Amino acid sequence: MGGDHAPQATLAGAKAALEHWPDLRLLLVGDEARLKPLLAQHGLAGSLAGRFELAHASTVVEFEDEPLSILKEKKDSSIRVAAQLVREGRADGMVSMGHTGAAMVASTLVIGKLEGVERPGLACPMPGPGGKPTVFIEVGANIDSRADHIAGFAIMGAVYAEQVLGVKHPRVGILSVGEEDSKGTEVTLEAAALLRQTDLNFQGNAEGRDIWNGRFDVIACDGFVGNVVLKSAEGMAKLIKDGLKGVLTSGLRAKLGAWLVKPALSTFFKQLDYREYGGLPLLGIKGVSVIGHGSSDARAVMNGIGAAQRALEGRLHERIQARIAQLNTKA
Amino acid sequence: MGGDHAPQATLAGAKAALEHWPDLRLLLVGDEARLKPLLAQHGLAGSLAGRFELAHASTVVEFEDEPLSILKEKKDSSIRVAAQLVREGRADGMVSMGHTGAAMVASTLVIGKLEGVERPGLACPMPGPGGKPTVFIEVGANIDSRADHIAGFAIMGAVYAEQVLGVKHPRVGILSVGEEDSKGTEVTLEAAALLRQTDLNFQGNAEGRDIWNGRFDVIACDGFVGNVVLKSAEGMAKLIKDGLKGVLTSGLRAKLGAWLVKPALSTFFKQLDYREYGGLPLLGIKGVSVIGHGSSDARAVMNGIGAAQRALEGRLHERIQARIAQLNTKA
Repeated sequence: MGGDHAPQATLAGAKAALEHWPDLRLLLVGDEARLKPLLAQHGLAGSLAGRFELAHASTVVEFEDEPLSILKEKKDSSIRVAAQLVREGRADGMVSMGHTGAAMVASTLVIGKLEGVERPGLACPMPGPGGKPTVFIEVGANIDSRADHIAGFAIMGAVYAEQVLGVKHPRVGILSVGEEDSKGTEVTLEAAALLRQTDLNFQGNAEGRDIWNGRFDVIACDGFVGNVVLKSAEGMAKLIKDGLKGVLTSGLRAKLGAWLVKPALSTFFKQLDYREYGGLPLLGIKGVSVIGHGSSDARAVMNGIGAAQRALEGRLHERIQARIAQLNTKA
Repeated sequence: MGGDHAPQATLAGAKAALEHWPDLRLLLVGDEARLKPLLAQHGLAGSLAGRFELAHASTVVEFEDEPLSILKEKKDSSIRVAAQLVREGRADGMVSMGHTGAAMVASTLVIGKLEGVERPGLACPMPGPGGKPTVFIEVGANIDSRADHIAGFAIMGAVYAEQVLGVKHPRVGILSVGEEDSKGTEVTLEAAALLRQTDLNFQGNAEGRDIWNGRFDVIACDGFVGNVVLKSAEGMAKLIKDGLKGVLTSGLRAKLGAWLVKPALSTFFKQLDYREYGGLPLLGIKGVSVIGHGSSDARAVMNGIGAAQRALEGRLHERIQARIAQLNTKA
């Protein structure tokens, strides 16, 4: 029910996902009275009818609500009910396009944190050269991270790179303001020291540019920095896309050229489009929770469901739990 | 003498600048024995001969040196000698392409801080829609900024926007993880509270995407965050440029189209090219100091000299001093 284009985009995305993955089954969480009349309109009928169910939730967390409202006045919100379904094992994972903070709280407090994880973190695979992404974690505005939180993000990001992206011995870095080991804040220096004590393939400090050049497979940082960098990248991509559109429609020569390069450009910009990822996995919880962009359209919803399936197939939360237990045993 | 392509690029840039600005006079600071034989080779002769002088400095700060080395073993480095020339009024401003940290220390300790400024900050005009930049400050890796430092960056950035970019009543924001006043760290919330007490046109929190969409004229943040965001933007611009080059040379149709759109694309990418800015002004010191990219070529050096001239013409440091004195009187 959450998100700028809900529930229409969510239903359309659900339908597309059911058609795309024949083994998929969905629980659609929201206000039954509102959703029921919309189902057939969005093609959720006929041969798909046996593969989804409605799960009733009477209310929804709005943009202006506090994340913690799900514990009090918004106990029966769709996000909290969805998390409860995961907690009870009635759903394998959840996907949400609504209030990011509420989704993080619901995932953390209702589904629950893995043992040994103090702060779950949102991981974003950033596009890189040759289509090889770098896992950038934490981007969910988990502010004031301590050194051990950042080290935890790095460990969880490494498991994600291994299990979901298939990277062997992922090269892990801590985001800082210079390559040299001496560069950084007290917190980043301490996080680096913690990672040096593990058997991770830790490569030291990464700089801002390294998010995009493929030198690292995983880059970890405080959630304030990560959120700002991610939103800055989104803004810059939009500026470039709009700017290119502008220059490519100015004058006959550019227009003709633009028509010729259009297919190539579309393919390229698809790589930079968050809708292709659909949503980001929250790592460090006892289950799968994928958090999508508020402005998600049907395509993004479908891809978010895909991201949740990949996390489940990679048994991501179990592997993260195993990895953390292994590191704790060594320490 | 500093920078990846020094002294050749510096000399070539100096020559281009002297030709471009007929009233300009330059002091070239560096090792006379090394520079003298190169002058004529780089066209610094003939009619230009009366418009520049050499100022001897026996050594240079290298990449691996500590910024504070200019106070001890590198007392006679070109960056320190240049700062000394500004301090003594023998130069109106300085431009450097070498070690950023050393340039910041030389500017801060040798030229000296303005009264009431505890932390000078490096300001970057980020490209925006319609070519209208947003002043982003602080990007010089001035880490662990306190709330009053960030408020100071905002004030200095506003003077820069007024005096150099000609913006009336610049809209000022503090970089945070959400638009709402409640979002941010203790430090950003306190910085915002400080700015609300001034008569600046303070608009509250800015998000990462606002660096690129023209909603603010000035966005202030801690130097760790600013440095990471700036380097991330550089890295992303490179990824996009390289990626476009790749897709635009794959296949005959794309190649032909690429040839047609090339002039339009070049114009567009020029706006994103740091060489067009040439260098960033360090705000909050008793003079003009422009700090360029280590990889500056002759064009960037010339544009850096242009940036220093704009700062001088806008009487930037005097106006910043006046603005700060005015705010202090009110408080």
